[in-house]
Amino acid sequence: MSVIERLRDELGDIVDTSPELLEAVRADRSGHRSTGRPLAVVHARTVDDVQATMRIASQTATAVVVRGAGTGLAGAANAGPGEIVLSMTGMDRVLDVRPDDLIAVVEPGILNAQLNTLLADHGVWWAPDPASRDISTVGGNIATGAGGLLCAKYGVVRDAVLGVDLVLADGRMLRLGRRTVKGVSGLDLTSLVIGSEGQLGVVVAATLKLRRLTEGTVCTVTASFRTVRDAAAGAAAVAASGVQPAIMELMDAASLAAVHTLLSLATPADGTAQLTIQTDGPASRDEAARIVEVLQAAGGAVAMTDDPAQGEELLRIRRSMHAAMASLGTTLIEDVAVPRSAMPAMFDEIARIERSYGISIPTVAHAGDGNLHPNFIFDGAEVPTHIWAAADELFRAAIGLGGTLTGEHGIGVLKSRWLADELGDDQWELQRQIVRVFDPQGILNPGKVFARA
Amino acid sequence: MSVIERLRDELGDIVDTSPELLEAVRADRSGHRSTGRPLAVVHARTVDDVQATMRIASQTATAVVVRGAGTGLAGAANAGPGEIVLSMTGMDRVLDVRPDDLIAVVEPGILNAQLNTLLADHGVWWAPDPASRDISTVGGNIATGAGGLLCAKYGVVRDAVLGVDLVLADGRMLRLGRRTVKGVSGLDLTSLVIGSEGQLGVVVAATLKLRRLTEGTVCTVTASFRTVRDAAAGAAAVAASGVQPAIMELMDAASLAAVHTLLSLATPADGTAQLTIQTDGPASRDEAARIVEVLQAAGGAVAMTDDPAQGEELLRIRRSMHAAMASLGTTLIEDVAVPRSAMPAMFDEIARIERSYGISIPTVAHAGDGNLHPNFIFDGAEVPTHIWAAADELFRAAIGLGGTLTGEHGIGVLKSRWLADELGDDQWELQRQIVRVFDPQGILNPGKVFARA
Repeated sequence: MSVIERLRDELGDIVDTSPELLEAVRADRSGHRSTGRPLAVVHARTVDDVQATMRIASQTATAVVVRGAGTGLAGAANAGPGEIVLSMTGMDRVLDVRPDDLIAVVEPGILNAQLNTLLADHGVWWAPDPASRDISTVGGNIATGAGGLLCAKYGVVRDAVLGVDLVLADGRMLRLGRRTVKGVSGLDLTSLVIGSEGQLGVVVAATLKLRRLTEGTVCTVTASFRTVRDAAAGAAAVAASGVQPAIMELMDAASLAAVHTLLSLATPADGTAQLTIQTDGPASRDEAARIVEVLQAAGGAVAMTDDPAQGEELLRIRRSMHAAMASLGTTLIEDVAVPRSAMPAMFDEIARIERSYGISIPTVAHAGDGNLHPNFIFDGAEVPTHIWAAADELFRAAIGLGGTLTGEHGIGVLKSRWLADELGDDQWELQRQIVRVFDPQGILNPGKVFARA
Repeated sequence: MSVIERLRDELGDIVDTSPELLEAVRADRSGHRSTGRPLAVVHARTVDDVQATMRIASQTATAVVVRGAGTGLAGAANAGPGEIVLSMTGMDRVLDVRPDDLIAVVEPGILNAQLNTLLADHGVWWAPDPASRDISTVGGNIATGAGGLLCAKYGVVRDAVLGVDLVLADGRMLRLGRRTVKGVSGLDLTSLVIGSEGQLGVVVAATLKLRRLTEGTVCTVTASFRTVRDAAAGAAAVAASGVQPAIMELMDAASLAAVHTLLSLATPADGTAQLTIQTDGPASRDEAARIVEVLQAAGGAVAMTDDPAQGEELLRIRRSMHAAMASLGTTLIEDVAVPRSAMPAMFDEIARIERSYGISIPTVAHAGDGNLHPNFIFDGAEVPTHIWAAADELFRAAIGLGGTLTGEHGIGVLKSRWLADELGDDQWELQRQIVRVFDPQGILNPGKVFARA
């Protein structure tokens, strides 16, 4: 029996080989496509479905790509010839919510925003808020170790997951972590799974650490600066003031102009860069007032509102970045992170690379945590060689400033060739050996992350 | 050449075989002792010393026990016959402090409180505050994944370390993690090292995630309750109110009475249990007022002060617990954690075990995160059989309530026989295989954590 026959035999009509779907799962939101269509997509509904799929895959040494909503930006969930796609979007139930313990147990396929809508009824929320939150799954957020806008104050996925149930490559299930906020028995395998991009197993449930919805008015501060370097220095001044904003987003001139065009807003003055900052919680108003002072002292043209609707409207400018970039051409969204104080220097490096390659690299940044998203724009579907060369310089500049290749998007296929540069060869090899402990045959998401070009 | 001769030959007079020291390193603060004296103590001063020691150890297949200040409570740093002790207390420098980036790079031997005194000059602090902070090292805090009083609000060690430099069993050094607050390139090995109790390598430097010293008055609230169950319900009501205390400590009647006796304070009414709560930050006063209301509604006799000295005096009652227990006999301090809402049920279980074994188990709890420290008191140096039997029931009760064997002290030698009960056999075996990737010969802290009785 072929692999597909075995899958059909055991799993029936959740095994899908429709050509449109097989074509769709070749790509994610990075735009990168695999070399061809995979064998089949299994629409998992239960843990048993996942275990059965993995048993067949391990018995037949067939590669498996675990996939959520396919909104990744590094190609980690792209599937190619000979591979089974294990689609988790059908496993989207909330299994338990315990507001008193600030935990929820959920299946991986639930969308981030959908989960938070449900949690709001209990007066709680899950803090990770990737820009993709309306369309990305919690399982995908865990697989990439996602960040978001709020994470300088409220943490990233790593800070917000207490445990996961993991189906191994051979179909066995492990319960990693716990339901308590503290716990140090054995190795922290939960953290190892977070951000492991489908290399270690299939997450079939997660125990999430929640927060209570905070009281207090959300205040929104915007500040325009003549240059992006000034804006970065303004963000650093806010950080140094000791006030912790909930959100602190920076848009450079090219980003701001592109979004203003998209949204039909008045064109900003040439070179203008912008900070958008929100405070929340019980001291929100005082903190916003303090931030206004700091930014005025830093030379910003500052405005403040405590009207939530107006605040959301201002933040919409930042949230429209992805659409604005898409309107300019094909986009390679990068994701370097540097120590906060190195942000102005990183913007200098970006300017240098722009001049050197004669290209524009519109950049937004989560300025509270030094995570920059430079956008390389080009024509056509494939990333041209000179863009990769420019990206290569960008990565090396970030690592040179004490930073990292990827703050929140992951390595996937697009950055695997740089991973050893950051980790060093010894650590790269050791990490690969750890992957082999979970997956001795190497059937989980092969050719990604630890694949050398 | 013998192992000691090789060590002396290469490292000179930092190799110490004085009988008093060899005797001292057989034990930690748990009181548990190894079966005999180790070979030697190497007082490491530099990374080179550590690498040289590990090379000799791996070439001679000699076991190595990495040791900080020896304040552990699970026997993890106790050394026995045939073993080399690698003492890290001499590597106690602060290598870098970057207040703007909220990071510091430190050697592992610095004491937690000593570090925070130095950091205060920069307006920053490192949040983990184990009760041992005056006498325990940062390296030891990392090895156990320590918690503390403040961690319900400010997190545990796992939340406060961005990277570690790790010398492997064979002497090679890996730089794990990064200096940025976000980063998802490769597997999160930093988290794997935190709480690994000397099984994976020797931490020779750590990049710590700092916080700014907060403004605002620290307010202290105390509340007395007629029973420990009422006090636990009061703590749960505070948690459910949405206010996040910095500290929320619970003392049961036996603990409170013992400390009052030690400090020559007035004897509390029979059965009285107490909550001691602190709020901090910009909304501190409002939060304390809210907590007073909640605790009064829960039936507590409540007092509040915003005088820092008076607040510290009230907290001294809680901090004197260890000394009060020591005055009663030899103590086995346990460390279970349960979901917050299960705390009243856990106190019921403790009462049941007390009745069943005819013993008293004075218990304090970090009530904000469900971490309980039941104290078993006995005569003599060795834990008697009936105390282990009672502890066994305690562990099973905690696991049965969705909890864990250890919230912040670790497994060491004292709890290794229960580890597989919590992890399950498959996960236990997989964790052991991961240890072997780091340390193929098994020379790092053998007979601990993953040793079966």
